[in-house]
Amino acid sequence: MEQAEIGLIGLGVMGSNLALNIAEKGNRIAVFNRSPEATRKFFAEAGDLQKNIIPCETLEEFVAAIRPPRPIIIMIKAGDPVDQQMELLKPYLADNDIMIDAGNANFRDTMRRFDNLKDSGLTFIGMGVSGGEEGARHGPSIMVGGTEDSWKRVEKVLTSISAKFHDEPCVAWLGENGAGHFVKTIHNGIEYADMQMIAEIYGILRDGLKLSAPEIGQVFGKWNEGRLNSYLIEISEKVLKANDPISGKPMVDVIVDQAGQKGTGKWSVIEAQNMGVAATAIEAAVAGRILSSQKAEREAAEKILGLPQTTAMPTTDGVSFLDDLENALLAAKVAAYAQGFAVMAAASREYNWNLPMPTIAKIWREGCIIRSQFLDEITSAFTKDPDVANLIVTPAFAKLVNDTDASLRRVVSTAIMSGLSVPALSSALSYFDAYRRGRGTANLIQAQRDFFGAHGFDRVDGVDKHHGPWGSGLADFA
Amino acid sequence: MEQAEIGLIGLGVMGSNLALNIAEKGNRIAVFNRSPEATRKFFAEAGDLQKNIIPCETLEEFVAAIRPPRPIIIMIKAGDPVDQQMELLKPYLADNDIMIDAGNANFRDTMRRFDNLKDSGLTFIGMGVSGGEEGARHGPSIMVGGTEDSWKRVEKVLTSISAKFHDEPCVAWLGENGAGHFVKTIHNGIEYADMQMIAEIYGILRDGLKLSAPEIGQVFGKWNEGRLNSYLIEISEKVLKANDPISGKPMVDVIVDQAGQKGTGKWSVIEAQNMGVAATAIEAAVAGRILSSQKAEREAAEKILGLPQTTAMPTTDGVSFLDDLENALLAAKVAAYAQGFAVMAAASREYNWNLPMPTIAKIWREGCIIRSQFLDEITSAFTKDPDVANLIVTPAFAKLVNDTDASLRRVVSTAIMSGLSVPALSSALSYFDAYRRGRGTANLIQAQRDFFGAHGFDRVDGVDKHHGPWGSGLADFA
Repeated sequence: MEQAEIGLIGLGVMGSNLALNIAEKGNRIAVFNRSPEATRKFFAEAGDLQKNIIPCETLEEFVAAIRPPRPIIIMIKAGDPVDQQMELLKPYLADNDIMIDAGNANFRDTMRRFDNLKDSGLTFIGMGVSGGEEGARHGPSIMVGGTEDSWKRVEKVLTSISAKFHDEPCVAWLGENGAGHFVKTIHNGIEYADMQMIAEIYGILRDGLKLSAPEIGQVFGKWNEGRLNSYLIEISEKVLKANDPISGKPMVDVIVDQAGQKGTGKWSVIEAQNMGVAATAIEAAVAGRILSSQKAEREAAEKILGLPQTTAMPTTDGVSFLDDLENALLAAKVAAYAQGFAVMAAASREYNWNLPMPTIAKIWREGCIIRSQFLDEITSAFTKDPDVANLIVTPAFAKLVNDTDASLRRVVSTAIMSGLSVPALSSALSYFDAYRRGRGTANLIQAQRDFFGAHGFDRVDGVDKHHGPWGSGLADFA
Repeated sequence: MEQAEIGLIGLGVMGSNLALNIAEKGNRIAVFNRSPEATRKFFAEAGDLQKNIIPCETLEEFVAAIRPPRPIIIMIKAGDPVDQQMELLKPYLADNDIMIDAGNANFRDTMRRFDNLKDSGLTFIGMGVSGGEEGARHGPSIMVGGTEDSWKRVEKVLTSISAKFHDEPCVAWLGENGAGHFVKTIHNGIEYADMQMIAEIYGILRDGLKLSAPEIGQVFGKWNEGRLNSYLIEISEKVLKANDPISGKPMVDVIVDQAGQKGTGKWSVIEAQNMGVAATAIEAAVAGRILSSQKAEREAAEKILGLPQTTAMPTTDGVSFLDDLENALLAAKVAAYAQGFAVMAAASREYNWNLPMPTIAKIWREGCIIRSQFLDEITSAFTKDPDVANLIVTPAFAKLVNDTDASLRRVVSTAIMSGLSVPALSSALSYFDAYRRGRGTANLIQAQRDFFGAHGFDRVDGVDKHHGPWGSGLADFA
């Protein structure tokens, strides 16, 4: 029997879909699941694709079915189960075999796993996969971290299954060890920000302009034909227009406003903090989810505090304010992406990954959750200037910010005066306003720190005196 | 010779001042420094206090000079040096001796050090000390974490040296192991937020109302007589009114607007993230310092983007807008403190510390950098209701929020329309507006997540169906 090009362990929804995708693209694949029943069921339902699938019920059989050096995708619950699966697998493997973790791993775990295999002859790939179940089945965006040799072994298969943006595959090798999972983490952090910003705009439309869910869906539908064109705007229209089969009401109106999270948003913030990068839009989004989850506290607080006493929203027919909302969302997105890319740039320096920014933007244009036309614009900007300090000072995005920030200003100000919470939108604006101002206000902070802690400061005239004429600093002037 | 009540290692500025404070309050203290010259110099300059100081040049001599069980304060650079010093010290110690780290340690290091000593007969205190050099010398706020027995051994000395708020000592045992250093970290996180908010108000006064530094100092001076009365407002007045002896200009105008940071702000954010608590005001403050430090990038961005094209600030004589600014700062402070206390409440549950919230507020009323009348109000609120879910739903602070949030709204909105960056002030407002709204907008986020990832949601009517009528969720309705 012809050997498989690749193996896959873990036939949950994501693993099954990925395996079917691989088989469908003409690659032979061996599959294994802890419970053989799942393997049998998967194979039984694979139809025409059975010809490319080798179902295996023991690890020994599974490993033997794969052509060496063996790339083996592990698609199971992130965390300890991955380590356990790797330990079970190792005795069957040979030199140059590649274990590939395709789950949402914390890149620190990926670094550790990669390092632990260093002298074993085996190697490890941390592979970020975005696109949800549909993406896994028909074309995800794939972010690969590992050795270049191991990448070459899997390049063909992964290229065949990845999403395509006008024929360009949305998969790339991004660097050694944790690079792929780090980039996937930041992808998700940006996704958090994107979704929070959309939710804030939705709040203004719902609670400010008093539009119904299908009306708001129509607004998003229209925006999806413009510069906001993206998967998240597209599905916003769809979910807003969907009706609940049980109550007949708009589906979103029946859903509890408590959002869950699985860790990648939090990891994005923590790593941004560790590297000293401002990622306020992602922070606002994570905080938004946290506050959403405190539903009982919020309901109690509304009873005690009441909703804010505010002025009304602009009483227009909504037309020009709708344009402002569209531009505001576009402007705010720029901040979120600028911050996400800044975090990756810092990580690239910190971990010597040499992350290719234009390539990252490229492989996010299709397949993944944040796919959009916008990412094609980012691709162009970074292709022209891959080492630019910040996305917002590239010519195209500087123009976009200047074209849209007045709208963002009006929208945030209006929402604030209307008592509507817009943490991500306002953080975006504050980010622009701080980043574009050469002379900020931290001189006062430095004066205070020197006053109470003799921390010292630099002078604008370059004079070599670093304390103020107060308290302990006085000596410096003596 | 009579033995010392306590020992201290590390005669830098903070250590020397703490030792002099201890001696001055009538406690005998043994001191040691790695370089004996520093010990000799310290002793030579101690004047009258020499009678209470035992200078030691070897660790053996030092340990022998202290009454067992020996409390030994280590006041050196945080991090590895502390571990090294502890290793050097251990061979000389006996059962029940107490090593006390008084530096700005990460509480995770404190937990580790505490645990490592568990079966050694020795024990460990992690002690947060706030108040800068002046505080160390004349009365700091002291946050103690360790065993209750070890606390009893040091209680008298620490009580004698701590700051007093109307005769109440600003020192307390807060819980086991890392409790003291954790609370100190959050103290500093709140301090970051406080300072950032003051800097944002300063920015509005400077760049919006075009006031001079001494004029702004006068505004802060007036505020210091009202509800904003606090050390940070007091020193803001002082530094704003100080002149540079070299140029003759206002001192703050000569200071570069790049603020440093030493880690406690970052740690506050990371731990808030780890526990899933929204700490957006602290996050905004840390981001503010990060962006301040990117001075060259900001100057370049201003050249490319220009300052925002905006409407002018309100053209009044400034009087009523000044009142708005005062109220806005007060309102924003509430959010920062509410968040800080919420982080501590979560940590208390996570680490079984049983942190006493009223006591923490109490010992912050004097001695520490954030000392203020405001903390006396917080003390009252938590004393009445120590287990309240959030500071802002206590009667006193609910009233304060409702009395001041309209001002905060006008100030943030005006700043935003004027192109001035107010990330911490606006994060405070967004926090209130999200926290007090029972029905938020995360229902849309849940709909999206279910659409692309089948994450599921809860329904407002409690019906046991957790997927929407789209894609993979359809089956749920079949």
